[in-house]
Amino acid sequence: MNFKEELMSLTLLVDNYLLEYFERLKSEVPETKLIESMHYSMMAGGKRIRPVLVLAVAKMMSAELSEVMPFAAAIEMIHTYSLIHDDLPAMDNDDYRRGKLTNHKVFGEAMAILAGDALLNEAFDLLFKTSAKAGEKMEQSVKASCVIASAAGMDGMIAGQVIDIESEGKQISETTLKTMYRKKTGALIMASIIAPAVFIGLPDDEIKALSEYAGYIGVAFQIKDDILDVEGTSEELGKSVGSDAKNKKTTYVSLYGLDGAKKMLRNVTEKAIEVLNIFGEKAWFLKEIAYFIAERRN
Amino acid sequence: MNFKEELMSLTLLVDNYLLEYFERLKSEVPETKLIESMHYSMMAGGKRIRPVLVLAVAKMMSAELSEVMPFAAAIEMIHTYSLIHDDLPAMDNDDYRRGKLTNHKVFGEAMAILAGDALLNEAFDLLFKTSAKAGEKMEQSVKASCVIASAAGMDGMIAGQVIDIESEGKQISETTLKTMYRKKTGALIMASIIAPAVFIGLPDDEIKALSEYAGYIGVAFQIKDDILDVEGTSEELGKSVGSDAKNKKTTYVSLYGLDGAKKMLRNVTEKAIEVLNIFGEKAWFLKEIAYFIAERRN
Repeated sequence: MNFKEELMSLTLLVDNYLLEYFERLKSEVPETKLIESMHYSMMAGGKRIRPVLVLAVAKMMSAELSEVMPFAAAIEMIHTYSLIHDDLPAMDNDDYRRGKLTNHKVFGEAMAILAGDALLNEAFDLLFKTSAKAGEKMEQSVKASCVIASAAGMDGMIAGQVIDIESEGKQISETTLKTMYRKKTGALIMASIIAPAVFIGLPDDEIKALSEYAGYIGVAFQIKDDILDVEGTSEELGKSVGSDAKNKKTTYVSLYGLDGAKKMLRNVTEKAIEVLNIFGEKAWFLKEIAYFIAERRN
Repeated sequence: MNFKEELMSLTLLVDNYLLEYFERLKSEVPETKLIESMHYSMMAGGKRIRPVLVLAVAKMMSAELSEVMPFAAAIEMIHTYSLIHDDLPAMDNDDYRRGKLTNHKVFGEAMAILAGDALLNEAFDLLFKTSAKAGEKMEQSVKASCVIASAAGMDGMIAGQVIDIESEGKQISETTLKTMYRKKTGALIMASIIAPAVFIGLPDDEIKALSEYAGYIGVAFQIKDDILDVEGTSEELGKSVGSDAKNKKTTYVSLYGLDGAKKMLRNVTEKAIEVLNIFGEKAWFLKEIAYFIAERRN
């Protein structure tokens, strides 16, 4: 199977699971507008990179995909809640995301806050229920959930958002930028790879290699975002471009120039691929994902 | 021991646990302002009724208080996040709570949203970590956590807030009012009583009795809130009174009159006490709490 086919096949699995999940919620939960608002952002054309990574790790280790799907879905819910709250007027005040109106533009601010809260809550509710039903795999399930909760929290993704908010309108140091990116984007990408690894019960050296890989693709993801803000088109990105420069934001491009950033991107992508060598040929898809992140147009 | 002493003693246990918890976070998590904002609302003079209920159930059944403390703390964090988000300009737009400036008035809207998110996340992070360390009690710990996650979510507390937001400026039916109260306030009070019961592993008939008790005191709590909005003083309540009437809100008082509401309050309080009879004398403190809820001045 080639990369594009495999990527589409895993993305489809995620999409179908989430679609069914939210259809079921619609029929079970009386708060129609709330569910509609959650559903809107969950189905707003996300690339599903995080849940696909969860499945990819499981598939590489020949684990059952259905067993890790709740982790994939929970991570995507957490990612989506963070986008809804980040877009709020009090935060980044964005009207569009992925070419669609942001949640609060469609459902109002109050509902957007509550839909974000509900997605975060539902992610953990799903993880608890999954653990409760995990039988002899309960401990692994709980430990994988710990990885996700910690990555999403005040020393992970939320910390990244705090640094971002506090850096607004300021030039920040390279160290601060890297910390911000590592937490804001990197932490949840790390969890997407480590949570299934912990659930499956991989040995320490394999977890270490995957964790290094996750660190590199997290950085690559962010460098590419910064490059796309300069080189991308608003059609491809579904949002306005050049906003970093306009807002005088510190980015990889502002720190190292466009060529410097591209060189770094190549460098971390190569490193990401190299650390996977201990897995041999079965790591082919994760390696391709590293290229995909570096070469994507949106 | 009399009621006041026992109440103070349990409240103190909760306060000390939370104080130590957030002091530890301050030393461990680099995002100082975020932790400060979370700390501010956690220590803003809450009555700690929910965590005290958790401890009270454990104490009644001679279970180890330290074992249920994480459930108590997680529920108080969830309660506090909901207050921070409810007070936001896009929601109830309140400047004061318990006589203190609301979180966004002190730390700004962006930080208040993130502090709320972080408290919700931390509550679940704590529950996962607690479950991971629970050894042979892991399954009970996970099941108790399920109770909390479900109560806080889109068919529990968040649903109640959605109904509240959607009812703004409208007269609502008695049924809608009761559903709103049952979810907005009742669900987390229910979880405060059922989570420790599930963790301890009480038999079905005792869980049923506790669940009925929780339902009654949840309603009592809300009726009393409505009465206090008419009869209380702003000094005692730490917020403006009469706001329900001013905002033409449907309440127990607007539906049944002040005397009718008081009669209902007596009625549900008596029922709450009656269903505890199967526990005999050891239920004395939970019974006193029902009176306390009905007689409180704030």
